[in-house]
Amino acid sequence: MSAGSSPLLFVHGYWHGSWCWSEVIAQVTGAGRKALAVDMAGHGLRARRPECLTRRPFDPATLATEVSPVADVDLDQAGDLLVSQIKQLGRSGPVTVVAHSMGGTVLTRAAQQAPELVAHAVYLTAFMPASDVPAIAYVQMPENAGELVAPSVRADPTAIGALRFDLTSDDAGYRQQLRDAFFGDVDPAVSDAAIGLLTPDAPAGIALGATSLTSDGWGSVPRTYVTCARDMAIRPALQQKFIADADAAFPENPTAVVALDSSHSPFLSMPGRVADIVAKLG
Amino acid sequence: MSAGSSPLLFVHGYWHGSWCWSEVIAQVTGAGRKALAVDMAGHGLRARRPECLTRRPFDPATLATEVSPVADVDLDQAGDLLVSQIKQLGRSGPVTVVAHSMGGTVLTRAAQQAPELVAHAVYLTAFMPASDVPAIAYVQMPENAGELVAPSVRADPTAIGALRFDLTSDDAGYRQQLRDAFFGDVDPAVSDAAIGLLTPDAPAGIALGATSLTSDGWGSVPRTYVTCARDMAIRPALQQKFIADADAAFPENPTAVVALDSSHSPFLSMPGRVADIVAKLG
Repeated sequence: MSAGSSPLLFVHGYWHGSWCWSEVIAQVTGAGRKALAVDMAGHGLRARRPECLTRRPFDPATLATEVSPVADVDLDQAGDLLVSQIKQLGRSGPVTVVAHSMGGTVLTRAAQQAPELVAHAVYLTAFMPASDVPAIAYVQMPENAGELVAPSVRADPTAIGALRFDLTSDDAGYRQQLRDAFFGDVDPAVSDAAIGLLTPDAPAGIALGATSLTSDGWGSVPRTYVTCARDMAIRPALQQKFIADADAAFPENPTAVVALDSSHSPFLSMPGRVADIVAKLG
Repeated sequence: MSAGSSPLLFVHGYWHGSWCWSEVIAQVTGAGRKALAVDMAGHGLRARRPECLTRRPFDPATLATEVSPVADVDLDQAGDLLVSQIKQLGRSGPVTVVAHSMGGTVLTRAAQQAPELVAHAVYLTAFMPASDVPAIAYVQMPENAGELVAPSVRADPTAIGALRFDLTSDDAGYRQQLRDAFFGDVDPAVSDAAIGLLTPDAPAGIALGATSLTSDGWGSVPRTYVTCARDMAIRPALQQKFIADADAAFPENPTAVVALDSSHSPFLSMPGRVADIVAKLG
């Protein structure tokens, strides 16, 4: 395969930010590609944190009930932001977009809205929802059995408008569950640094939104799914369901599949492999 | 001025990470430049956090005394890492490096080590230490009177090996002092998001290190200093001292100066202006 030529735009998943791609971007820019990592709506420099995190002593009851300051963020807002980020990077030309985890839901929306701007849609163990199905519907499906994210949420998302972690918990078992959910094959020092950079509240509205997909919209965009065999956040059987459903809906444009033997976060455990895969696309 | 052509590498200051440049990078890549933001040694995905942050109830005495897990990080390590990051981005060709705050100390070391790899050294209200002078020596100089960073440190750096903030303090006055120190002209929601992404411990070893500068080393590299008139971390008189001392030491290679009317963090308050300035260099 030869190297692609469109700029590469990287979109993180829930709780993460542009920071999670730094090593992948170092490698793809070192390989000569123009690349950019952005913050999703409600994340990174666009995040807001609950006030209870600056109250002492810490009160678990408030953590479980304080309405999230990102409760107003939804898929419409996240999709519009990503389209504007794509336009800025591509200077009106097409861009290859790499999305991780919940970033896939936003990529699907953006690619349906502006398919001509997406040279290639790359889902790195990401939500790739079917037409009119919100991402949240997949979380509890049998194909996702064993996932460790939902059990780590420390407040009712329907009550506070966010999926909230207790990132500085004094419960060593809970902190280990977060590592196992996201970073099972990542160097422990790096995974702890990553947990330190997560934002506690992921806006529920992104997972609650759905997108109607059309053949000349999302269905027309070349797509690759990168599966991760040891993922404890989006289980391998759910990854396969995303691919199978997409190929059944748009059989004229089948999904290219690349397999990694990684946790949910190959951008941290094997950034060179991720860079090699995406640098050949678009 | 015409646009430069070398890749742009961005290095943050103490406590920050690659994330702080995301909007500047979006704009320079949108303007057609290849760009990369990296994590400095001991920061971002290379950061480590004191254990006391996951103890409940919070104990201020432990915060003030626990030895930092980044106490072993020094300027040698930080400089070597930056040289390797420059080499990776530039593929052995020269790179324009933009450094903020304490990142300037690391840029000076890297440019002295490998002047042929630095097309242009850009100090954005950064430490630009003279030959054999450690950055720490400048902090308490009369030219830096009024700065708000040292008063925000919550442990003895010589005892714990780091400059430590209490980033989730329940003292509203203290949190406001952090905003005033770094983010005076930044949208409050963005400055709070930035504070949420800071790492608590900045390795003291970087500020304690010094570099011997030579005419054919650092003194030979074209340099620009971007002054920030409302900076409460590196005061304007200290910025001017850095420029005057460098020009006295290397008069054949004077500093180009660009002025911004900003706080310490124009990458957040006026990213478009920062992008415009650096996109024309190198």
